[in-house]
Amino acid sequence: MPARSVALTSGYFDTVFAKTTHGLIRGPSRFPLAGVVDPSYAGQDAGTVLDGTSRGIRFYASVAEALHQADPPITHCIVGVATVGGMLPDSLRSDLEYAARAGLTLVNGLHYLLGEDRYLSGLAVAHGARIIDIRRSKPASALRFWSGDVLSVSALRIAVLGMDCAIGKRTTCVLLREACRAQGVRAEMIYTGQTGWLQGVEHGFIFDATPNDFVSGELEGAILSCYGDTGAEVILMEGQSGLRNPAGPAGAEFILSGDAHGVILQHAPGRRYYEDLAVMSCAVPPVSEEIELIRLLGASVWAVTLFTRGMSDSESRLAQSMLEAELGLPVVRPLEEGVTRIADLIRARL
Amino acid sequence: MPARSVALTSGYFDTVFAKTTHGLIRGPSRFPLAGVVDPSYAGQDAGTVLDGTSRGIRFYASVAEALHQADPPITHCIVGVATVGGMLPDSLRSDLEYAARAGLTLVNGLHYLLGEDRYLSGLAVAHGARIIDIRRSKPASALRFWSGDVLSVSALRIAVLGMDCAIGKRTTCVLLREACRAQGVRAEMIYTGQTGWLQGVEHGFIFDATPNDFVSGELEGAILSCYGDTGAEVILMEGQSGLRNPAGPAGAEFILSGDAHGVILQHAPGRRYYEDLAVMSCAVPPVSEEIELIRLLGASVWAVTLFTRGMSDSESRLAQSMLEAELGLPVVRPLEEGVTRIADLIRARL
Repeated sequence: MPARSVALTSGYFDTVFAKTTHGLIRGPSRFPLAGVVDPSYAGQDAGTVLDGTSRGIRFYASVAEALHQADPPITHCIVGVATVGGMLPDSLRSDLEYAARAGLTLVNGLHYLLGEDRYLSGLAVAHGARIIDIRRSKPASALRFWSGDVLSVSALRIAVLGMDCAIGKRTTCVLLREACRAQGVRAEMIYTGQTGWLQGVEHGFIFDATPNDFVSGELEGAILSCYGDTGAEVILMEGQSGLRNPAGPAGAEFILSGDAHGVILQHAPGRRYYEDLAVMSCAVPPVSEEIELIRLLGASVWAVTLFTRGMSDSESRLAQSMLEAELGLPVVRPLEEGVTRIADLIRARL
Repeated sequence: MPARSVALTSGYFDTVFAKTTHGLIRGPSRFPLAGVVDPSYAGQDAGTVLDGTSRGIRFYASVAEALHQADPPITHCIVGVATVGGMLPDSLRSDLEYAARAGLTLVNGLHYLLGEDRYLSGLAVAHGARIIDIRRSKPASALRFWSGDVLSVSALRIAVLGMDCAIGKRTTCVLLREACRAQGVRAEMIYTGQTGWLQGVEHGFIFDATPNDFVSGELEGAILSCYGDTGAEVILMEGQSGLRNPAGPAGAEFILSGDAHGVILQHAPGRRYYEDLAVMSCAVPPVSEEIELIRLLGASVWAVTLFTRGMSDSESRLAQSMLEAELGLPVVRPLEEGVTRIADLIRARL
């Protein structure tokens, strides 16, 4: 039976926690997405709600409804949210239990492992449901330490970093891969989060579930196997978090251990505070300073890309032209205008 | 029976891999150290070989010899090396097996877990030997995500960072805690590596074995519990690796998530390339640039401390005065002259 999935967002669809599901709707998906379970939008079209583009993916009120109505039948049930700290929201539980009882494969990218939830794993065993915990980390003996072999990989390496988490790094990375390919450039992407894996990207690792000492080596290993398997001319690395996000600074690894030649920096002009940290007044620093920080870490920023959710078209255009004037760099709005301008830049560097 | 330990270095004593054992010889030690097992120096005094100061700790050729000769008897056998990638060197195996057969408690801080080594753990079970794997990581449900509560801890927080790994950060951190205490300042330290735990430091976590997403929260949790338990005026954070070490960049967490007020930066003037990366020509960048990087990350460097191994006294003095002139900051040689100058600085900030 071909794989067909539903993603559970159960009340979270219009929050950044649902970015996993938003990515699966935009596609591609390792398990083709037939629907999203969220009672708030039951009956509506998920793509239309997300960005005005229908893709034939329906909202259902429950897994029960999806199983009853979807044709061809559903085979996989995906935890479609990424929560702070990776815990399982209570609102998803009853649907997961229903899915386990129905023998669906449960796919989960949270730190909270379904395989270690006694009740859910018991249900799964009893009903022949499989559990895939994407974030289950390998034993230390299977993890890779950094060797420096990446330094002799001849593919151009570009890190897509962000000023913050939940800011569109992965989406820009996917668009950039497609834009490079459209110009005849053999471009590949390294996934570093659960959504990249769920979208079927072949090479990568789960950055934030990896024991700290092995992050650099696993990143290098993903680059080496990507290059070995595909002979890519361009390897795009999906960044994580932001260089100065106090809840979990990240990014230096891509520049130093991934030996990035260039950086594409994703920025949300309307975002004054780090995601979820407004109450502590943790302000996002200026882009120009971040570019200097990246320079000190050893790479240069080739372009800035904008996350424009919540902005009108005229607002995002204004932010774009102000930043271009300030930074003297190409500033691009990926969802509005595509990323061909950046693909041109990349091709020119080959 | 009171704990008495031997540390195994088995051929590695005079390499940086033995820094764990060097720290235990300098003391203190959670399990008081009676000897070091390394055939290369059998019969000699470990402290004298390390730094010319005898501390009554003997070298033994084997665990068998230590068990036979030590009085009071040995109870614990510590893996006394920290290897790249955390694998168990073959030269330690036969002594560990002997220790397991003798019913000693095996204490191990490598990523390689003795409890998951079938042969060794089988021996341990058969002979009633306990295994303590310091780096075994907690399940995700027991790990802590960053909350920002650290921002309201009133203790002065200082990160002891290094230009590289294996450069003396922990030693400087311990000396600084003692120097502050000698001035009547309630100073505590947060350990972040296996050696700090082995030395009996109460608050901390194993930085490099923690899944990446939880490093910031575990650091914050250690600071909160340290402050809650002790009411410390000064909390010193033991740094890890170096901000630009490509094999595993680290340090931003201490500044951003530990919310450090100041940084003490440990530097090896004679070291041109990152530890173990000379063959790749990965050069250690200039200290002045690192200070600027730390400033961009949100903290200022209050003093530079020198790792002088392999330098003559006149060489290390020269490096000290050149750096002081260049940087306009106090530059201190902790092992040669103590760190009272830095403790004075810290007291002045209270």
